[in-house]
Amino acid sequence: MEDYKEYFPKSKKVYFDHATKSLPPSVSLINLKPSRNYNHSFSEIARSNQKLYLSIKSKLSQITGLNKDNIALLPNRNIALNLIFHSLKLNGQNTVITSISEDTSIITPMIKLFDISFFEKSDSEYTDIDILIYSCIDNITGQIKSFDKKNKDQIKIIDASFNLLTYNVKKHNADIIIAELSIDALSPLPLCMIFIGEAYAKLQNPFPSDGNIQSYNKNRYIFHNDISSMELGLIDYNVLHAFEKALDFSLQIGMKNIFDYKSSISKYLQSKLSHISNLSVLIFPHLQNDILSHLSIQVSNAHDINLLLDEISNIEVRSGELCSQIGISHYGLDNLIRISWHLSTSKNDIDYLIDELIRIFEILN
Amino acid sequence: MEDYKEYFPKSKKVYFDHATKSLPPSVSLINLKPSRNYNHSFSEIARSNQKLYLSIKSKLSQITGLNKDNIALLPNRNIALNLIFHSLKLNGQNTVITSISEDTSIITPMIKLFDISFFEKSDSEYTDIDILIYSCIDNITGQIKSFDKKNKDQIKIIDASFNLLTYNVKKHNADIIIAELSIDALSPLPLCMIFIGEAYAKLQNPFPSDGNIQSYNKNRYIFHNDISSMELGLIDYNVLHAFEKALDFSLQIGMKNIFDYKSSISKYLQSKLSHISNLSVLIFPHLQNDILSHLSIQVSNAHDINLLLDEISNIEVRSGELCSQIGISHYGLDNLIRISWHLSTSKNDIDYLIDELIRIFEILN
Repeated sequence: MEDYKEYFPKSKKVYFDHATKSLPPSVSLINLKPSRNYNHSFSEIARSNQKLYLSIKSKLSQITGLNKDNIALLPNRNIALNLIFHSLKLNGQNTVITSISEDTSIITPMIKLFDISFFEKSDSEYTDIDILIYSCIDNITGQIKSFDKKNKDQIKIIDASFNLLTYNVKKHNADIIIAELSIDALSPLPLCMIFIGEAYAKLQNPFPSDGNIQSYNKNRYIFHNDISSMELGLIDYNVLHAFEKALDFSLQIGMKNIFDYKSSISKYLQSKLSHISNLSVLIFPHLQNDILSHLSIQVSNAHDINLLLDEISNIEVRSGELCSQIGISHYGLDNLIRISWHLSTSKNDIDYLIDELIRIFEILN
Repeated sequence: MEDYKEYFPKSKKVYFDHATKSLPPSVSLINLKPSRNYNHSFSEIARSNQKLYLSIKSKLSQITGLNKDNIALLPNRNIALNLIFHSLKLNGQNTVITSISEDTSIITPMIKLFDISFFEKSDSEYTDIDILIYSCIDNITGQIKSFDKKNKDQIKIIDASFNLLTYNVKKHNADIIIAELSIDALSPLPLCMIFIGEAYAKLQNPFPSDGNIQSYNKNRYIFHNDISSMELGLIDYNVLHAFEKALDFSLQIGMKNIFDYKSSISKYLQSKLSHISNLSVLIFPHLQNDILSHLSIQVSNAHDINLLLDEISNIEVRSGELCSQIGISHYGLDNLIRISWHLSTSKNDIDYLIDELIRIFEILN
């Protein structure tokens, strides 16, 4: 097998922008249609949704190695992060740090709640903190970040990542994980997973809802005290149904194969980029065994190049602030292009991107 | 025009249970399919959702007379009510009352937060309270409830109603309204509207999310301080699209016509029920000009009758605790059948229901 193109829908465009475009396999898109009988009552819908939730959690568990009983599904990362803050009773008294290149949608809920500090390279100086929130895959460079928790057991680590399948979560020491599922996990529409580790599993029930009631009698309601109490209201059945097909697809390809393929694409792209002679590469990770999902290059006129790639070449990349306004402005990086790839990316796509980049550099010079 | 049947999909069943079955017009169901081009990026989806939000708010404003700028859309009533509690910074110190026949999904979030009291008939004795939360249409009897706010300006009234279109919100003094849109407003899938009156309009921004950012610079993020800050994350485009068609339908029929038609159905049903000689009617509102959406009758073996109506007659009604466990148990009402109706209900449907009820009473006696 050369690549996985045949499993993805044909498209006029070549996408190297995972942050704004989900690239689900065809088998998932085909299932993204109302398959429910609309004569069903809400309770029937709720029951079939419940089955899907359980099946999806079990498959997410197979893929990540995380305990399925500690996984909840929510509509998006903002609701998830806010619920976790609420559940952990975090407030302005807590010392919080986050990484300088963090994604805006992660930083935003914190800005209102905390005086946050940013860590850059060394993590050893941070001792007197309660919570660290960051995406384990750097939003700008694509490199895997880690935080040395040694002798810092009191710190809760929340990984609010865009990525899920490209790293082995066991290698990594998050207590709580918030993962958008439309990127690595191939959901065709936004969907979010939260994982709450054993140490914090009993802290939830952040927002009571009628779905949380386990039993009641005349004077007393008893609530579930498991992760399902995080799941407020229904997520659309069609999204869940289509997402399950995407999970089946990933399980069928096999996680090791996905990892190896993305790693080979990563190396191929880095090697190709290193041969462009007049490319001023500022953020450019060294070739390494660790898998990358994306990388950024610094060029002059990033925005013009982005537009020309789109209009002339039908290629989508990302330029601008990469949803990392604080990091971008801190480092003075105003001319970045971010390139991301997935199983749907082929070596032919990379060849085409490199050819078109060179062509556009020539037009602009 | 005799009735509005032609605008609704044909169904094997006759539904008299609005709490578990949405009955949208055909024009809405037809539009409940993925109409979005899935080659669109998330930002394109977000932009088209944004347009739909504005259009829907404007139409909800036409229908309710509420200011469109004070309306927000959320996935469900539990998220909405929790967000409002959070936004108003309500806690265990607040004195809260609610009605005895309240819906469980409204009571549940309160149970965890407050020592709540229940009001029954007279509201004059309540002076030392902060918040009153109730559905303006009684969950058991279907009658319109009101609370006399005279000289009690400090009380915030939150109407957490299942109903929206059957009452004129101007007659009624809620400061905040939470309305499920799948019943009266004919949304084919669960969807929720919140309205926050002028007095509290600036209290929101309960949960910051990246969609709330108005502008930022290096050191500071400025957030929207309007109702849109309540809208965390996207509601599925297809649901919104189909709901807008349902609103267009209601506007086309005209609110006065809808009101008059439902009122005539209500009177017709009450008159028919009053002629069943051996029906022990305990909860049975007197004929009145106020519109009813549903009413409850007390029968022996409510659950058996419910099952027989379903199996023999293809009629769905609701029996059991009607999601009002506290009121039902307080009043000792254990054999209720609740009958609800809408524009999709015809006088023929009522005739059929009455005939089948009589037939089943005869079978059981």
